[in-house]
Amino acid sequence: MQEEKKIRVGITQGDINGVGYEVIIKTFSDARMIELCTPVIYGSSKVLAYHRKSMDLPAVNYSLINNATELNENCVNLINCTEEDLKVEFGKPTQIAGEAALLSLEKATADLKAGLIDVIVTAPINKDTIQSDDFHFPGHTEYMHHHFALGHNVLMFLVSETLKIAVVTGHIPISKVSESLTKTEVLNKIRLLQNTLAKDFDIQKPRIAVLGLNPHAGDNGLIGNEEAEIIKPAIQAGQDGGILCYGPFSADGFFGSGMYREFDATLAMYHDQGLIPFKTIAMDQGVNFTAGLSVVRTSPDHGTAYDIAGKGIASEESFRQAIYLALDAYRNRQNYIEAKRNPLRKQYFNKESDTDLSTLVAENNED
Amino acid sequence: MQEEKKIRVGITQGDINGVGYEVIIKTFSDARMIELCTPVIYGSSKVLAYHRKSMDLPAVNYSLINNATELNENCVNLINCTEEDLKVEFGKPTQIAGEAALLSLEKATADLKAGLIDVIVTAPINKDTIQSDDFHFPGHTEYMHHHFALGHNVLMFLVSETLKIAVVTGHIPISKVSESLTKTEVLNKIRLLQNTLAKDFDIQKPRIAVLGLNPHAGDNGLIGNEEAEIIKPAIQAGQDGGILCYGPFSADGFFGSGMYREFDATLAMYHDQGLIPFKTIAMDQGVNFTAGLSVVRTSPDHGTAYDIAGKGIASEESFRQAIYLALDAYRNRQNYIEAKRNPLRKQYFNKESDTDLSTLVAENNED
Repeated sequence: MQEEKKIRVGITQGDINGVGYEVIIKTFSDARMIELCTPVIYGSSKVLAYHRKSMDLPAVNYSLINNATELNENCVNLINCTEEDLKVEFGKPTQIAGEAALLSLEKATADLKAGLIDVIVTAPINKDTIQSDDFHFPGHTEYMHHHFALGHNVLMFLVSETLKIAVVTGHIPISKVSESLTKTEVLNKIRLLQNTLAKDFDIQKPRIAVLGLNPHAGDNGLIGNEEAEIIKPAIQAGQDGGILCYGPFSADGFFGSGMYREFDATLAMYHDQGLIPFKTIAMDQGVNFTAGLSVVRTSPDHGTAYDIAGKGIASEESFRQAIYLALDAYRNRQNYIEAKRNPLRKQYFNKESDTDLSTLVAENNED
Repeated sequence: MQEEKKIRVGITQGDINGVGYEVIIKTFSDARMIELCTPVIYGSSKVLAYHRKSMDLPAVNYSLINNATELNENCVNLINCTEEDLKVEFGKPTQIAGEAALLSLEKATADLKAGLIDVIVTAPINKDTIQSDDFHFPGHTEYMHHHFALGHNVLMFLVSETLKIAVVTGHIPISKVSESLTKTEVLNKIRLLQNTLAKDFDIQKPRIAVLGLNPHAGDNGLIGNEEAEIIKPAIQAGQDGGILCYGPFSADGFFGSGMYREFDATLAMYHDQGLIPFKTIAMDQGVNFTAGLSVVRTSPDHGTAYDIAGKGIASEESFRQAIYLALDAYRNRQNYIEAKRNPLRKQYFNKESDTDLSTLVAENNED
């Protein structure tokens, strides 16, 4: 078993003109959070104070440290990543905010790589202002992919109590969705989903639902043929590989009838097909989980929410859930690795060579 | 004011192997329905009896009549439209069921044209088996369009208490959605939506939300440009014409934040973008309304539901709501026409010709 050390949670400040600090402050003003983990905010003590005062938010007891080797286990930690004076302009996209978001993300990423923190929870960024020579990604997911991907692929996975849904294609126009789908791509995502459910969610034999692409899942070819040519063969290949995956299901009926409750997770073909029902059903409880990384990264499922920034009315629920999920996923992953660390040598293996053993070792390392 | 005559509701039997008869029987076993309207089922007394007995459903008092000129106002009426002996095979697509569905639909349509019934409520059909020389449409909506369209366009409009949503494109593959969108088409649908809300739903100055096509409504052009090139100009043209239409909104956030509650209706760009949130939110209370017809037609928002046909577990709620909505829409439309029948002649009009008056007459006739 693992020692019962508290998990060290790195938190990036995100866009200082959005609701990030507000949900961070609201979450950690509850002192019980410190019993669950050791949080460290990569940000600015002055910006935190500005947000707290301007919205009259509750106080957060924190310890200002120079770097993550000095973590105090009994309170929130804060590392100043930016210059002293940053101008906060609620609801505005500014270059200063973009630079500050990137400095925070880079410092937290470096500490995660160095093993000084265990997991990372990212507050929302503005995808325009953060762009620079060092950041040329559509969002956090792709940035984390660049730094921590285990394989060629990561999976955007939205998680809530009642619905867990991943998407095959992400931030691309609707006109490009069909041409982006291949049997290989759908199968890859089915496998990534199966893998994260087993490793990070402790569901060893998950039941996975796969949606169709077209209205009524193509209505037997009357409305498109991607179901017959791409999605069904991918599902079949997944089943042949021992994965409990089913479909393709007609998306509207699948959610309308509540059928999604019968599965551990659902794979949607495109962004809105997954995100619309997810946000409708999970409301402000949803968490964005990036599956397929060597580390655990979560974030709330909302953006900077400029329209309500600085008003004190943002809900911290999604951010809080993002922390809970990061902790659960980290523990599940440790246990999964632990359980597979010293497998019994198979009783019957090919005595002619030692390939069987080396395969086991390789599998173990991969985790 | 209209005389307080009960509205005559024509009901087609739909597919006899699906849940149609079950929801019809469950709805009309409640005798209070007769106080609201005069229903006439276009179907088969033997098939109705078979469904009732095999599922042990409650009794329906009905009067068997030869044609709709003999309507009995004090009970359900039934007109036999098919041969004596029809084989019911629950959950199976059969040619017999397809032919029976079409005979019922044709008879009801003829009576609606002849003014013998006031509105039509259609039970679900199987879109494969109903195809014949006389029926070569993707569904009811297109059939009604062929027989009753006022203009060039009809609108699939899903209606419930909390959410009303129409779609610009319908039963087409996702790969064809982008190329099917034009400014003219989006504007036409905005106008149809505004028109039906005023005429059939008695909302004289409706607030209409228009969704974007792409994830995050295109994210300022980062993810597609249909928002800038097609949807925004259509919304602007609608506003220039005095319609209170707004957008384009990012679909996932729009439903996740509950923003849809601030509008009288929402216009989605494609089938699943509208139907997924509608079915998720409206559950079994939803009604399918075909806007843009010279007559009122509604249907439940579910299909034949072969998987539960013959089991007695189908909910009649959507079918009941379809009848309520047909009655409301018919009354609203009568009142709307009545209110506009004898408009005051405008005080200031072009004395040089009588075009102003003729315009008024034309408008009145169009209703």
